[in-house]
Amino acid sequence: MMQILPGFRDFYPADVAKRNYIFSTFRRVARSYGFLEVDGPFLERADLYRKKSGGELMGQLYQFVDKGGREVAMRPEMTPTIARMVAESGNGYRKPLKWFGIGSFFRHERQQKGRLREFVQLNCDLIGEASPAADAELLALVIDSLRAFGLTSQDFVLRLSDRNAWVRFFQQKAVVENRMEELLQLIDKIERQSEQETAEKLAPFDITLQDIRDFIERRDPASFSDLLAELSARGLSEYVEIDLKIVRGLLYYTGMVFEVFDRQKRFRAVAGGGRYDRLIATMSDGRVDLPAVGFGMGDVVLGELIEAVPAAEKKMRDALAAQPACEIYVVIADETQRPQALKIIQTLRQERWNVDFSLTPIRVGKQFQIAEQLQARLGVIVGSEWPQVKFKRLATREEFACPHDVLAERLKTERAPLIFDF
Amino acid sequence: MMQILPGFRDFYPADVAKRNYIFSTFRRVARSYGFLEVDGPFLERADLYRKKSGGELMGQLYQFVDKGGREVAMRPEMTPTIARMVAESGNGYRKPLKWFGIGSFFRHERQQKGRLREFVQLNCDLIGEASPAADAELLALVIDSLRAFGLTSQDFVLRLSDRNAWVRFFQQKAVVENRMEELLQLIDKIERQSEQETAEKLAPFDITLQDIRDFIERRDPASFSDLLAELSARGLSEYVEIDLKIVRGLLYYTGMVFEVFDRQKRFRAVAGGGRYDRLIATMSDGRVDLPAVGFGMGDVVLGELIEAVPAAEKKMRDALAAQPACEIYVVIADETQRPQALKIIQTLRQERWNVDFSLTPIRVGKQFQIAEQLQARLGVIVGSEWPQVKFKRLATREEFACPHDVLAERLKTERAPLIFDF
Repeated sequence: MMQILPGFRDFYPADVAKRNYIFSTFRRVARSYGFLEVDGPFLERADLYRKKSGGELMGQLYQFVDKGGREVAMRPEMTPTIARMVAESGNGYRKPLKWFGIGSFFRHERQQKGRLREFVQLNCDLIGEASPAADAELLALVIDSLRAFGLTSQDFVLRLSDRNAWVRFFQQKAVVENRMEELLQLIDKIERQSEQETAEKLAPFDITLQDIRDFIERRDPASFSDLLAELSARGLSEYVEIDLKIVRGLLYYTGMVFEVFDRQKRFRAVAGGGRYDRLIATMSDGRVDLPAVGFGMGDVVLGELIEAVPAAEKKMRDALAAQPACEIYVVIADETQRPQALKIIQTLRQERWNVDFSLTPIRVGKQFQIAEQLQARLGVIVGSEWPQVKFKRLATREEFACPHDVLAERLKTERAPLIFDF
Repeated sequence: MMQILPGFRDFYPADVAKRNYIFSTFRRVARSYGFLEVDGPFLERADLYRKKSGGELMGQLYQFVDKGGREVAMRPEMTPTIARMVAESGNGYRKPLKWFGIGSFFRHERQQKGRLREFVQLNCDLIGEASPAADAELLALVIDSLRAFGLTSQDFVLRLSDRNAWVRFFQQKAVVENRMEELLQLIDKIERQSEQETAEKLAPFDITLQDIRDFIERRDPASFSDLLAELSARGLSEYVEIDLKIVRGLLYYTGMVFEVFDRQKRFRAVAGGGRYDRLIATMSDGRVDLPAVGFGMGDVVLGELIEAVPAAEKKMRDALAAQPACEIYVVIADETQRPQALKIIQTLRQERWNVDFSLTPIRVGKQFQIAEQLQARLGVIVGSEWPQVKFKRLATREEFACPHDVLAERLKTERAPLIFDF
């Protein structure tokens, strides 16, 4: 029997409903920040990632040669595509660009909790503005996105860091420019690597593990004062902590970087991002040079977090219940009236009601049973009384009768409130 | 400079807006028919398509060996995934299943008008019901989806056919079972192939081109009487024509098949589908055996058709205009009040308004200019009069003043209508 690939997911109706709830919530918040939705192709030239992303991502590319002999890769992240799009056509848009996207990405990772090989990422990029005000706008959007799901400062924290602070620190330690990246990658791995290994790798630079720890402890708030003031004016201070252990694994980050974690540290990072001020210039061979800041938030960990926080889980459940798959079930009590029933069904659907019925003749009792399984709110019964029809509030089992055209007319003009007014 | 792959698309904000309009319209109609949304992975085992789809699709697969040594393919169509999902977990769901999906698909085709290598398809499948009533429900959904875009029977037609009618015809001509598919593929290509070539290929079966033409002319309405009666009861007859030249290229179709074309035949098929009663059994090695009928509708041709029909194009334009990217632009007239402005912005966004502002200090006149470029409806001016703020209807340039908390409160409680009531 045919099987799905490991690390990939099928989305059955309940899964898509949750996914769409996450998408539409995020879409609404991003739009409230004046961000516009964009998207790119699922397949790109492999070179797009090779020099720009770097790090462990390169070993995880779904990469192959296409029928035209091109080296291609399924997109592992959005930022390089955004940078390419801006390099190509960004000049035609007013700056700063505020762009967001929702899409699937692919990484051939070792399978583990919270990591799949295909995952959805919600992305946001603010391009063309280098000031801390842009960083604040982006971080506020991350925080408000999570708050929109019913998550609070009890549930998550944004850990803020700055690659430049590290660069300055290493410069003081006389580290030369072309060894800088190597040390940043070392900081990135500091919590996943043994102390001994880290210390050994630091030794040639004449830096001790204690130097690193002292620097992390200092939390150098100077680099963040403008950014923190902006977040404070927005009333969002409680969501942010300085944590210089964060440096992000990707090569293209240049300044502020951050990651969002659940407070209990039960899950992997919910979101992460930072400044990538040089990437667009690199992509365009210097023709377009715009500072940028962005983030990505994965659906897997976000979904786990929502389900783990009762208030957030309830908010999702309520939102899903407000969108019933079937609002009206049409019961055909007399098969000779089926054509009439079809006409009513057609009318109701055109008036945007979600309507279902039995495609084949079955007992009336069975039809009501299905209506209840579908959690329909209203039953419309078409039978031998035609042109009279009955309708029934399924929750209370109250029944009413009226001519079919009167019913159709009321359902036409009143839409949703009617369900409750009957 | 990095370039996009040929046959792939970048979606800038205006493109995504159109795409989301198409998606949400289709989603609404499918839901009104009681269909539930599903999705599958973008990558599948190549075997999923190899034996099931057949035809020219096989030469167009984006196919490769992954890092785990598996032969995989980027999905070229949805039906095999749906069949796999049903084979795996379909038993847990009430029949008939009514499932729809919206997603990207990949075919390495020769580039031509209306064909891209990555395209979005709107898919619907009705599974577990073999009666013509199921076919009618599906075809009505195709038709109503197109009508929801403002397209009429002047603009498109659904060409209906039946593979079984051909099978019976060929059986009468004494064609043996294992040559049947070959002849069906020949009919599929009949309009794209020279008469001579078709005649030559028919000759060994003792069938003439005239036999074929006569059969097509007869339009055997017998096979369609129930289906057509159902569509007539729904008031949809004018959208359907019988056309036996349609057989569809994919191997898995078993009975009713159809394609939708624009009336003027300016474009390729807008949608196509049919019955695939044996596919799910094949996928599950006979463990799950359910009849099924489905269709796919591509975004590329649909988009072209909408843009070519003035009424449909206007409908789309109106829908897009009703969702402004910026509803309220906050003008900071006195930079010392920026923290207050940020607080107001935060409040308005939380109340679901789309709000934008200048991240950096710029002249007030310039801020109003940007507000107008963004087509904001309302300007909120925060200046030295704090705690008074001004607000301005940008269309009429009327200005009003009030305490900021009064404004925030009104904008909190009144939401959308306010824009027009001010």
